[in-house]
Amino acid sequence: MISLDAMGGDRGPATVVAGMVASARKNPDIDFILHGPKAELERLVARRKQLTGRVEIRDATDVVSMEDKPSQVVRSGKSTSMWSALEAVRAGEATVCVSCGNTGALMALSTIRLRKLPGVNRPAIAVLWPSRNPQGFNVMLDVGADIRADEQDLLQYALMGASYARNGLRIDQPRVGLLNVGTEEHKGRTELKAANELIAQAAPNGNFDYVGFVEGSDIPGEKCDVIVTDGFTGNVAIKTGEGTANLIGVLLKEAFKYTPLSRIAAVLALTSMRRLQKRIDPRRVNGGVFLGLNGTVVKSHGSADATGVSSAIKLAYQLAVSGFQDKIAARVASAVALAQDAPERETGTE
Amino acid sequence: MISLDAMGGDRGPATVVAGMVASARKNPDIDFILHGPKAELERLVARRKQLTGRVEIRDATDVVSMEDKPSQVVRSGKSTSMWSALEAVRAGEATVCVSCGNTGALMALSTIRLRKLPGVNRPAIAVLWPSRNPQGFNVMLDVGADIRADEQDLLQYALMGASYARNGLRIDQPRVGLLNVGTEEHKGRTELKAANELIAQAAPNGNFDYVGFVEGSDIPGEKCDVIVTDGFTGNVAIKTGEGTANLIGVLLKEAFKYTPLSRIAAVLALTSMRRLQKRIDPRRVNGGVFLGLNGTVVKSHGSADATGVSSAIKLAYQLAVSGFQDKIAARVASAVALAQDAPERETGTE
Repeated sequence: MISLDAMGGDRGPATVVAGMVASARKNPDIDFILHGPKAELERLVARRKQLTGRVEIRDATDVVSMEDKPSQVVRSGKSTSMWSALEAVRAGEATVCVSCGNTGALMALSTIRLRKLPGVNRPAIAVLWPSRNPQGFNVMLDVGADIRADEQDLLQYALMGASYARNGLRIDQPRVGLLNVGTEEHKGRTELKAANELIAQAAPNGNFDYVGFVEGSDIPGEKCDVIVTDGFTGNVAIKTGEGTANLIGVLLKEAFKYTPLSRIAAVLALTSMRRLQKRIDPRRVNGGVFLGLNGTVVKSHGSADATGVSSAIKLAYQLAVSGFQDKIAARVASAVALAQDAPERETGTE
Repeated sequence: MISLDAMGGDRGPATVVAGMVASARKNPDIDFILHGPKAELERLVARRKQLTGRVEIRDATDVVSMEDKPSQVVRSGKSTSMWSALEAVRAGEATVCVSCGNTGALMALSTIRLRKLPGVNRPAIAVLWPSRNPQGFNVMLDVGADIRADEQDLLQYALMGASYARNGLRIDQPRVGLLNVGTEEHKGRTELKAANELIAQAAPNGNFDYVGFVEGSDIPGEKCDVIVTDGFTGNVAIKTGEGTANLIGVLLKEAFKYTPLSRIAAVLALTSMRRLQKRIDPRRVNGGVFLGLNGTVVKSHGSADATGVSSAIKLAYQLAVSGFQDKIAARVASAVALAQDAPERETGTE
């Protein structure tokens, strides 16, 4: 059962319902709880016979907008569709929540309502990034849940990221790398040197291989499957990568418009280009996953179209059937147990 | 006069000399002081008639390798070609130094031998990055001189980056942005909020426009011409961008090999592809510039070929004839003078 926030995306609830239809068509086992203004949603769902008997609608009159401040939503957002969508996971009615809404508000609300897993200080947002690896994508986290991360947080990110790669990308023994400005052990900030040692120690019991420090060029590379970093650096990195890919797309179009011959070439190249576009299409890997909470939350792009929403639902479904939430909780708990021999850690917030 | 380190690049001194020939052919006004093992360099230069009478060779027997630690080079690198190349700038014989060698060693040696400009606490490395702006490139700094930067450093980067954009890209009134994880004023780390105010205050007297916070996607974008960030974030960002561009290149080739028709399309698309490649070819903008020192240093890629070396020389020449060094020194000094009304700043190293 997937709990789905119908509101808050740039394209409105009709696009979310269209994404549900695409998923429902491909997979007969997915059922939904859909949250938003009841009358409107009933009308949208009634038109789609693929959804008959598979959607329960929960009335929520308010919507979290992209401009709403997270603190405001946490205080007075009880009647929003986002709140309602998380509530279904909290109550155990659904395994995973999917929302296209405001990332900051969704993270704040998820943390408050679902609460952090025992042993996790800072939850993280993990994304899939096109790469040269056979599975086609690498996991990167954190990409913006928090702008800080100390060595213990980075260790948790390594454990959670490895668990996500096992369940989301089906890699038995993921290779984990820690993002730095060079691969030499003496380089980087203090917390990175400390995290380098902690992650190396945790690898044998964590069912992952630790490859040590990696660089920005390894994010789309084949040196590791999971890239661990703080949310500030991770956020800048993915946005730089997206911006660079967009720039190349624009320049490619310009290059093909340059001469009559190149226009002919463009027509012939169309299928090749589509093949490439499909390979790196961000809609196909649409969905940042919030890790470190009592419940899994998939954040879809605010601008996602039906294809994007459908791929976020697909990811949510895959994580639900793999029992990901229980596995990641067990993984973090066992790391905490192992660390009890080590000096205690301050767990206060900053 | 350009002071050129012949050694330390991955392809050896013959490639450096080939780059000199390409530059000398295009520009009859460039003269060189070339540093390295005298006998070998004399042999290489003697073969090239374009260089006759335009190259003075300075004997330096040792080479800084890519593996040498910066601290080691600073202590005992006096007989290296890198040291000798910087010495010519220090002595006022040349305006700009160009080297393909070890970045860390070059930065350390430049800082020790040329010394920091009065008012600059941390020098920075600035690079040009392909963008949607009319000039084709944006300036980004720091990309790795230091892994830290406080608000005063970020302010200096803004002043120096704007000066570089004026002299290196010929933009009269550059638009400067400060890299963050969102554009809202309340977001980001403490030092970013402080720098946001300092840079806004400095803009009217600094001959630049401040656009406020920008995101990773704006690095190749058109929202600003100069992107200011700390060396850790900047380094990760450029390497992520390079890695993404490389991945797209690989996938593009694969896409064109997929079917017989797409192979034909590839042949027809070749000139368009070359046009694109030229537009984003890193060799055309080869050269990180060290800013904030008493003298300008251009760091060429270690793997640069003759085209890459030639473009680094072109950049060095352009900065030399524009009087960039005096202008940036004046700019920083006037900012320091203006700040004397403000509370004093700790200038100690960390």
